[in-house]
Amino acid sequence: MIRTFAINAENIADVVERVRHHRPRVHCLMNTVVQKFTADGITAVDAIPSMTSSMEEIASFVAKANALTINLGTLDAERRKVIMHAVQVANGEKKPWIVDPVHCDYSPSRLAFAQQLLALSPTIIRGNAAEMELFEETVNSLRIQTGPQDHLSIGKRSVRVSNGHPWMAKVTGTGCLSGGVIAAFMAVEPDPLLAASAALCVTGIAAQLAATYANGPGTFEPAFLDALSAISRQDIITHARIEHDEG
Amino acid sequence: MIRTFAINAENIADVVERVRHHRPRVHCLMNTVVQKFTADGITAVDAIPSMTSSMEEIASFVAKANALTINLGTLDAERRKVIMHAVQVANGEKKPWIVDPVHCDYSPSRLAFAQQLLALSPTIIRGNAAEMELFEETVNSLRIQTGPQDHLSIGKRSVRVSNGHPWMAKVTGTGCLSGGVIAAFMAVEPDPLLAASAALCVTGIAAQLAATYANGPGTFEPAFLDALSAISRQDIITHARIEHDEG
Amino acid sequence: MIRTFAINAENIADVVERVRHHRPRVHCLMNTVVQKFTADGITAVDAIPSMTSSMEEIASFVAKANALTINLGTLDAERRKVIMHAVQVANGEKKPWIVDPVHCDYSPSRLAFAQQLLALSPTIIRGNAAEMELFEETVNSLRIQTGPQDHLSIGKRSVRVSNGHPWMAKVTGTGCLSGGVIAAFMAVEPDPLLAASAALCVTGIAAQLAATYANGPGTFEPAFLDALSAISRQDIITHARIEHDEG
Repeated sequence: MIRTFAINAENIADVVERVRHHRPRVHCLMNTVVQKFTADGITAVDAIPSMTSSMEEIASFVAKANALTINLGTLDAERRKVIMHAVQVANGEKKPWIVDPVHCDYSPSRLAFAQQLLALSPTIIRGNAAEMELFEETVNSLRIQTGPQDHLSIGKRSVRVSNGHPWMAKVTGTGCLSGGVIAAFMAVEPDPLLAASAALCVTGIAAQLAATYANGPGTFEPAFLDALSAISRQDIITHARIEHDEG
Repeated sequence: MIRTFAINAENIADVVERVRHHRPRVHCLMNTVVQKFTADGITAVDAIPSMTSSMEEIASFVAKANALTINLGTLDAERRKVIMHAVQVANGEKKPWIVDPVHCDYSPSRLAFAQQLLALSPTIIRGNAAEMELFEETVNSLRIQTGPQDHLSIGKRSVRVSNGHPWMAKVTGTGCLSGGVIAAFMAVEPDPLLAASAALCVTGIAAQLAATYANGPGTFEPAFLDALSAISRQDIITHARIEHDEG
Repeated sequence: MIRTFAINAENIADVVERVRHHRPRVHCLMNTVVQKFTADGITAVDAIPSMTSSMEEIASFVAKANALTINLGTLDAERRKVIMHAVQVANGEKKPWIVDPVHCDYSPSRLAFAQQLLALSPTIIRGNAAEMELFEETVNSLRIQTGPQDHLSIGKRSVRVSNGHPWMAKVTGTGCLSGGVIAAFMAVEPDPLLAASAALCVTGIAAQLAATYANGPGTFEPAFLDALSAISRQDIITHARIEHDEG
């Protein structure tokens, strides 16, 4: 049984510091659209990304990683095989993993595959409202419904994170990037609710700070990476908007 | 018979407003190099991009989309099958599509494939001078020859667009991105000549405005996305350089 | 036998000018993560990148190219076949090529493939310390070990390049990009030691200059591309840190 700590700004800042100290490895099975942006985001929090999706190599890379993030964008038959193999390795070695069933509401075959993955007990499943409503209540997995507010719940525990900026929705891949940051945080924090709340709070605060340096969604993107890499305990304490969610 | 409107700044600004109001979905079969940049450009004009190129999923995604853009960069055997299937769905549902036979002058097999696509009557084919001279006169497709000036022609109608900035040629994928914006504009404007003229004029003006905020091609890229998302009716009226082309 | 020139700032600036004058074509077999960033870097030095990795097309593209860069990131079975075919074409036409066995220390199958490539006498092999120690002394290939200082050696000749900035390690793909720039420089300079020293010196100086315009790794990336495209003979003479390496 994991000892759980309160979800508050101080504990979130502690998780950020542990990532910077331990530099965990995060393997990403990421859609090809946002691989670099996600890798840059993982690097910005001082974790170490890897990205290969080759069947011959995936086991070696997952075995070296401390956490795994799986994104179902640009999904094809070969990729499904690789994802399944990666999940077997991660479950076998008790490594945390998160799945983002992006656009599974567009494609029945993608939804069916997402449901197969959910049966393998990911540590976390995260999606938007349209995606998450397609999945029944989960027993072992933390559910995250992202949006202007992010709702996180597992069993009777739930949290609402209200940090962020509208320009995040104008930059392709900010959600995919935050999935990578969640994985990095899970690698150093055993409570997935604290790890994920921390990752969403920190990326949201970085976006708020970045917006003051940007003229639009284009210049917001590099400013966001600057802010994410520089975020301080004081920034978190000043700006965190975390509440225990009444659901 | 499509009722055609004059190609002028006011009508171009109307198309931009219709895209912002209707937020059409654009599916992209895009080379892997520039998927994110293209998605960010489509998002900047308030349309909604999708990018999957999986055989199992392409029909679902094209069916959900309002227009399709096909780019022949990084082409392989699987991708050819997916593109053909996507075109069948688009033609079957009378959805507009544009093909960019990028670098078909480098590769006989890519040229042969581009010619197969042209026989399926794309709404628009666009390429540079070296690419376009490889294609005979088309009956049903708008032809766009891009360069310092863009030449658009279909039947007896033709237009020249002279907006743009030299730094566009120093940023990989600005042409691919403009193909995505053309698709977004075709989704709300039935006359392909007006839709394409509007897209090329607006991306060109955004580049001109962005250059004043940039120090080189690197900082030009985010400034271009800022300008594209913020472009106003007044910007278009002030800067549009559109002429009826004497060929 | 290649006539070799001294490795110094003046000769490095001459190589940069030759690339800008001749605009060589560089074909990249690049991991999907950093294709655009690498293409933008090659374009910034006024060379012309291409990126396809399709079996049907690779021979045509390599035949059109003046140099080839091969990066083993995101490696799969199809990609291995394509790489082998590309190398045969390059060797058959005596075109210079560089291989970057990125992360071969993570994956036995990737290491075995890298060793097969090394047996085909690449003009250059480059990697970090962990990667390079896995390869025995090479006879025909220039070895580059990258890090805070870059060590280059072939036969009895060796050079140390000390330019660069710590933010390069915070931006995914700066090493991959420099592999593309090395290929561009090899296309105009027959001595691989001068070509590679020049490329690493110039990218390192661009990073140093860019850092003064950036607030963090996010804004460093576009500023780096600006600096790389604008770098002058005087910048090189003022900032080059090249020494003959005592090993």
